[in-house]
Amino acid sequence: MAQQESLERLTALTRPHKGMINIMPLQTGSILTEAARRAVEVFADGYSVCDFCQGRLSEIVNPPVKQFVQELLPEFLGCDVATLTYGARDGVFMVLHSLAKPGDVVVVDGNRHYSTAVAAERAGVELVEVPASAGPEYTIDVDAFAEPLRSRRPALVILTYPDGRFGNLPDAAGLGRIASEAGVPYLVNGAYAVGRMPVKMSDLGADFLVGSGHKSMASAGPSGVLGMKAKWRDVVLRPSTQHKNKEVECLGCTIRGVTLATLMASFPEVRERVNRWDEQVAKAQWFSSAMEGLGFVQLGEKPHRHDLMRFECTKLYEISQRVRERGYYLYKAFEDRGIWGIKPGQTKNLELSTFAASREQLEKVISAFSEILTQYR
Amino acid sequence: MAQQESLERLTALTRPHKGMINIMPLQTGSILTEAARRAVEVFADGYSVCDFCQGRLSEIVNPPVKQFVQELLPEFLGCDVATLTYGARDGVFMVLHSLAKPGDVVVVDGNRHYSTAVAAERAGVELVEVPASAGPEYTIDVDAFAEPLRSRRPALVILTYPDGRFGNLPDAAGLGRIASEAGVPYLVNGAYAVGRMPVKMSDLGADFLVGSGHKSMASAGPSGVLGMKAKWRDVVLRPSTQHKNKEVECLGCTIRGVTLATLMASFPEVRERVNRWDEQVAKAQWFSSAMEGLGFVQLGEKPHRHDLMRFECTKLYEISQRVRERGYYLYKAFEDRGIWGIKPGQTKNLELSTFAASREQLEKVISAFSEILTQYR
Repeated sequence: MAQQESLERLTALTRPHKGMINIMPLQTGSILTEAARRAVEVFADGYSVCDFCQGRLSEIVNPPVKQFVQELLPEFLGCDVATLTYGARDGVFMVLHSLAKPGDVVVVDGNRHYSTAVAAERAGVELVEVPASAGPEYTIDVDAFAEPLRSRRPALVILTYPDGRFGNLPDAAGLGRIASEAGVPYLVNGAYAVGRMPVKMSDLGADFLVGSGHKSMASAGPSGVLGMKAKWRDVVLRPSTQHKNKEVECLGCTIRGVTLATLMASFPEVRERVNRWDEQVAKAQWFSSAMEGLGFVQLGEKPHRHDLMRFECTKLYEISQRVRERGYYLYKAFEDRGIWGIKPGQTKNLELSTFAASREQLEKVISAFSEILTQYR
Repeated sequence: MAQQESLERLTALTRPHKGMINIMPLQTGSILTEAARRAVEVFADGYSVCDFCQGRLSEIVNPPVKQFVQELLPEFLGCDVATLTYGARDGVFMVLHSLAKPGDVVVVDGNRHYSTAVAAERAGVELVEVPASAGPEYTIDVDAFAEPLRSRRPALVILTYPDGRFGNLPDAAGLGRIASEAGVPYLVNGAYAVGRMPVKMSDLGADFLVGSGHKSMASAGPSGVLGMKAKWRDVVLRPSTQHKNKEVECLGCTIRGVTLATLMASFPEVRERVNRWDEQVAKAQWFSSAMEGLGFVQLGEKPHRHDLMRFECTKLYEISQRVRERGYYLYKAFEDRGIWGIKPGQTKNLELSTFAASREQLEKVISAFSEILTQYR
């Protein structure tokens, strides 16, 4: 019977792309380290990090959550106080919900992630967007924030650094100066920065920095981090009036299980890999040039400074209009070649990440594009 | 140097009690099934369930999240609509934040979990508690809810079923009738019910039922489920105005990774195991009798109807007052005997769960208590 089959299917879940070259933007920064894979085996059961909990997640000594949250993370993020979250969006919501009242204004960049708007809606605040420039660059000019920060008196300003669509890196430190002058608290959404590239909250003049474990810190999901200045501790991490060792915005504890174990186990390697960011940037730029050599147009900033990239691929789209599989031909052609990350159906605008693949692997990606163009010429 | 050692320690995280008999209340319901252990290996990387996402977590077809959330979970929970959460507390907050305005009243039972109070505080609502009876039973009389439901006009009434301290099971269906008569939406916090024992929202006359993956559904954490009546879909799962396929209270998506994979992979076995609940109850009652035979007092309802139990152990406490290790002697004595779940330092009031251990294993637990009493007589 059908239901029996469904149930059996649940017990043997698979993924199709083991061992394939991965260029999917959502996934390249969260492939686990070997240490995290070992941690997964040990901490897979439910409340696994809570063996020796005395009531506060951030004070567990074994495994060393306390040291991770109270020493290592603040140093890494360049902040005074850090906490654990379910992900970047949850960190954004925690801050919004703590600092803003319903009806307040929050200023954001036009390249913001959808979840920033959803978090704002959940907190009942009005979003005022500073738009990106016209294409093909879609850049954010941080000077354009000065006016709304002055005239709208926002409760918070949020910058997406980089954004997830183009991989543009706006002048986050510049906005830090503008926000400070205007006296507006400043949050940097570093979901695609923290764990990939060097980024310190203090260097950006920010009040808050959010990162994503399952986007950029080689961690299982859901997991994330939130760093802040000391002065916000009593606001965002305010304790419950009835339960003094439980933080209201965390509902007590957040990532109580395996995802915290992977976040911690990968941390030493993540901490090191950000120091090799210049190699990543060089690789991204080389890849972008090769793609443009094939006639595709890289959108976003050029020269590009991040592994996330978006290409306008008119030629691939034109092919989709005349082949039997329509838009799916491209996904299939890449799957056949052992390359994972082209969204099924997508041809016109391709979002890719060069973070996890080696140069040799990316050469195969370029060859694949080239072969496909030739095949369907 | 010290930091280098800290970092190295993170890459080799361990847990002490592999293979030990587990009686820790937080952990006995979330030991993974074999199917979930296989899923962990496959889905450990970050955004692993999102390979084929078209924009909504609950509509992903591979892995079969759509079928799980839209068909299997509603049938299992006895509800019209189900959604995925980070855990029971997060489900409670989603409902509170959707149904109640700051300043509203919410009525709860006196045995509520701390996170219910914290979630209420986060939502800015006032909690009115219907107290439990005096000890040793600490029962909740649901008839006592009628008055505050009438006089305080609460936005929601929450019942903890069972509570996590005593494992008491109040008359949830009775409260369903009272809430329905009073016209007050009714949420059952089944963090220790869903996945352990048969429980259907519809049988309880509830509007909402929350469950916890990492407490009772053999899943990695954080993970949870929330079931509701169809009429609440547009309230709790309201879509974002700007991003139509993203739900505001979920901030788009919730458990986007390995914890969802384990929740799904364990589901077929979890769905079956609740049908053997009478065996669990018989085992719990037998254990309670054996403990009382040693002179300990089982608090909470008797005969007991749940695997969560609390014992008053005055004799063990007295020993702690005269031994060198003070309260830690008990933890050590159990650790030496391969039994996990006594909190370090705890002697006077012991919270245990008989869910994961077999009768043979529980006989060893009883023997351990007996030996310790003899040894320190």
